Amino acid sequence: MNKNIKQKVIFTSRLIIRFLEKGHRLGNISNFSNGTLQPLFYPTSIALAGVTVNNPQHWTRTFFDALLEFQFEGPLYLVNPRGGEIRGIKVYRRLADIPQNIDYVISTVPAKAAAGLIEECAHKGVKAVHFCTAGFSETGQEEGVRLEAQLANLSIKTGIRVIGPNCMGIYCPESRISFNIDFPKERGPVGFISQSGGNTGGLIRQVMSRGVRFSKVVSYGNACDLNETDFLEYLATDSETKIIGLYIEGVKDGRSFRQTLQKAAEEKVIVLLKGGITEGGARAVSGHTGALAGSEVIWDSLCKQLGIIQVYSLEELADSLVTLRFMSAPRGRRVALIGAGGGSSVLIADEFERRGLKVPPLPQEIRNWIGEFTPLAGNILRNPIDYSQNWMEHEKLLRTVHIISQWEGIDFLIWFLDISWVPLNAMNVLHEILDGILTESRAASKPLAIVLQTNISPEQVKKAYSIVEKCVSSELPIYYSFASAANAINLLLSHNERRLGKP
Amino acid sequence: MNKNIKQKVIFTSRLIIRFLEKGHRLGNISNFSNGTLQPLFYPTSIALAGVTVNNPQHWTRTFFDALLEFQFEGPLYLVNPRGGEIRGIKVYRRLADIPQNIDYVISTVPAKAAAGLIEECAHKGVKAVHFCTAGFSETGQEEGVRLEAQLANLSIKTGIRVIGPNCMGIYCPESRISFNIDFPKERGPVGFISQSGGNTGGLIRQVMSRGVRFSKVVSYGNACDLNETDFLEYLATDSETKIIGLYIEGVKDGRSFRQTLQKAAEEKVIVLLKGGITEGGARAVSGHTGALAGSEVIWDSLCKQLGIIQVYSLEELADSLVTLRFMSAPRGRRVALIGAGGGSSVLIADEFERRGLKVPPLPQEIRNWIGEFTPLAGNILRNPIDYSQNWMEHEKLLRTVHIISQWEGIDFLIWFLDISWVPLNAMNVLHEILDGILTESRAASKPLAIVLQTNISPEQVKKAYSIVEKCVSSELPIYYSFASAANAINLLLSHNERRLGKP
Repeated sequence: MNKNIKQKVIFTSRLIIRFLEKGHRLGNISNFSNGTLQPLFYPTSIALAGVTVNNPQHWTRTFFDALLEFQFEGPLYLVNPRGGEIRGIKVYRRLADIPQNIDYVISTVPAKAAAGLIEECAHKGVKAVHFCTAGFSETGQEEGVRLEAQLANLSIKTGIRVIGPNCMGIYCPESRISFNIDFPKERGPVGFISQSGGNTGGLIRQVMSRGVRFSKVVSYGNACDLNETDFLEYLATDSETKIIGLYIEGVKDGRSFRQTLQKAAEEKVIVLLKGGITEGGARAVSGHTGALAGSEVIWDSLCKQLGIIQVYSLEELADSLVTLRFMSAPRGRRVALIGAGGGSSVLIADEFERRGLKVPPLPQEIRNWIGEFTPLAGNILRNPIDYSQNWMEHEKLLRTVHIISQWEGIDFLIWFLDISWVPLNAMNVLHEILDGILTESRAASKPLAIVLQTNISPEQVKKAYSIVEKCVSSELPIYYSFASAANAINLLLSHNERRLGKP
Repeated sequence: MNKNIKQKVIFTSRLIIRFLEKGHRLGNISNFSNGTLQPLFYPTSIALAGVTVNNPQHWTRTFFDALLEFQFEGPLYLVNPRGGEIRGIKVYRRLADIPQNIDYVISTVPAKAAAGLIEECAHKGVKAVHFCTAGFSETGQEEGVRLEAQLANLSIKTGIRVIGPNCMGIYCPESRISFNIDFPKERGPVGFISQSGGNTGGLIRQVMSRGVRFSKVVSYGNACDLNETDFLEYLATDSETKIIGLYIEGVKDGRSFRQTLQKAAEEKVIVLLKGGITEGGARAVSGHTGALAGSEVIWDSLCKQLGIIQVYSLEELADSLVTLRFMSAPRGRRVALIGAGGGSSVLIADEFERRGLKVPPLPQEIRNWIGEFTPLAGNILRNPIDYSQNWMEHEKLLRTVHIISQWEGIDFLIWFLDISWVPLNAMNVLHEILDGILTESRAASKPLAIVLQTNISPEQVKKAYSIVEKCVSSELPIYYSFASAANAINLLLSHNERRLGKP
């Protein structure tokens, strides 16, 4: 090993160790066995504490609305000191008044009332509480820090597990729990652990229309008790979860997080977005969840060492999850780029090759073969393949795709289309082409992905959405820019190459 | 100067000189005075040669449809050997049969008939022809190369200027010429020169909904006669044009291109997207317009030397044009990030600081001031400013924005909003906030830009579009991701810093 590189590695390792030892432990009393988190994801009964009775638009109604929409099956109780009823359901004045047992409490009570609620929960035999409300350590004020420490101590004292405060809690389609009425009701293999509720919603919205479905999602906020390590450990052994996305602002206990991450990465594919890697971002972290952000070099090294896919934006995280979910791993880096438009061909080739993917030229023999039934004017038969002048004659395009997919010189296919110039009444042709290309790619066992270029004008979106829906029903990965597709597929390939020990 | 760097500079300079000497000159007979291109952009009469008579869906109808839609005012003649009429307009069998003079011919005749058409044009006194049809040197076939050389020679011999072949020609709203019925009919200060017709349409569609309007646009394809240098020279002295976008695959004459680019960069702001900077991209270039792509290092150096803003994708080009058009240059790099969501605050701060922009923390004094009327719980008053919990109380948010815009510690404002969680019937509140923030930013003479996060589902787009339209009517730059905004604003700032000689 080169001496400079060696020193750099030693230095970085030291940084990691220092960072890991620096971790703060507040409420973690033991390593979790998987079973202890079951009541959070699969509670038999839920009480909503602090739900507003008179104003249906109030944010504290969020969880009630979502649980009704998802048809949570267990008993659901409402609690507010004022009593009353909402939609014909009785509102209890105190938790103690509820006649049955409660597994899990979702709290929207003010920060000052949180500690009192834990004590009430202890008397009632509640197993876990999620505190949505903000106003704790993230304010940077002495009072908020004190209130949060009080919660953490009560959690240790009573044994009641706490999610939060300052977060959205759990979305688990299987047990019909959600914090948003719009999330998909179907289950899927992707787990997501996020320190931010907003980024959780943002991520889910970015991928749900592209077909990604979730096993378990948790927005865990300030993590005064349960934290990223606990949830990661849970998802690592959750048989429903195959892919894990992580949005982390800061870790509570670096050493145990690292151990858990390593173990989890052996079982599942993990994609990590670290928020707060710049000075301004780190400051935003401390205002958001009160966490310590940790330096960029440490996170980069950690991901490299453990084989974690690292991303730097919510869009990139979304693209990676779509890729992992729907793209079977190509055997190699050689891509056939098929689509419309000469200028687009140039730019997509640049985007793919810039990221280390290969766009091999078609051999002359194959070009001659295609040339037998394809006019040269307006078409480009090299790779990328431009069929813009003759896309309405789609049987010829599909014959071309057949020949190219059977060629051993390529490993996967991209079909890119700019629908802005396609009339609405000609969209059926694009659908037929998509069906045909999919058939060819499957016959040749070569993965296919779609790049759809559109703008957000309402008339364009109508056309775009019909293609998106077809991709979802065909389990095809879809991207909205050349760069996104090239980047996400490169991340997948690099990840697989590392696992296989390729250089 | 460090010796290694010096050698690198010498090496690069040599490369540039070699590259510039390598240029091919085919049809350029003289340097252009601006006047000679006037008949192309402002013809008094146009003939469309090769327009299909019986099939209204045929692509050769494109130009006819567009010129009717744009209400081109001069006489418009149709030519096809079969004769007949289209929409009540007589179709002449030969150009010679047209009783009046013709300035400009747009040709969709097959490649083989192109040379014959130039000769007909010469007899008719036509000043310029645009050949849309493909099937020339870009095919890589001997026959196509021969046909293109023939066109070039005929252009020299007859003095008739040729645009193309293999391109879409001219869009000039002032003279009511367009090659697409959907382009905006209003004029604006942006000129665009593009080797690709598809990328021209793609770029225009990306920016037109965001308010950018054009002076002159030309898609010039294989450039057998008129090329990037001619059009650049024209736009450099065009008083309507303030900003010039360039999409170039390869230059015909490197030396004169460099000279013209330097001159143009002294007059206007130029943004350049070079297609074909990778091996695969360069191969696509040769199949697309038959050009020589040239290496990446040469283009990078050229842009740095001449103060050209260089971009690497059509999206980045679009974002740069939107920024140049609507963002008055901030005095410095310090930004106040105002919006909704703690997690978003973290990620947007990261995106801006990663690109060398500064997100300065608000001084404690200002935070105290804002804290007097703002609840701490759920809000972050540091910078970024998160108002997600209380965005409906917008008078407090606007009071906050007032205080921040007046603070001398910041140079410009970004308002970011994720509309996915805003109900359609609450969108009016966002519009009021936008009006208020705009008023504050103008009062403080600090530029404002909007980052709008949405997905392409039809219901979201409806909401998004109302914000986009407001931004357009208020002349505000709008972006669809944190990364796009940060990147484009950094490019603008870096460009201005170079012009002012800042380090």
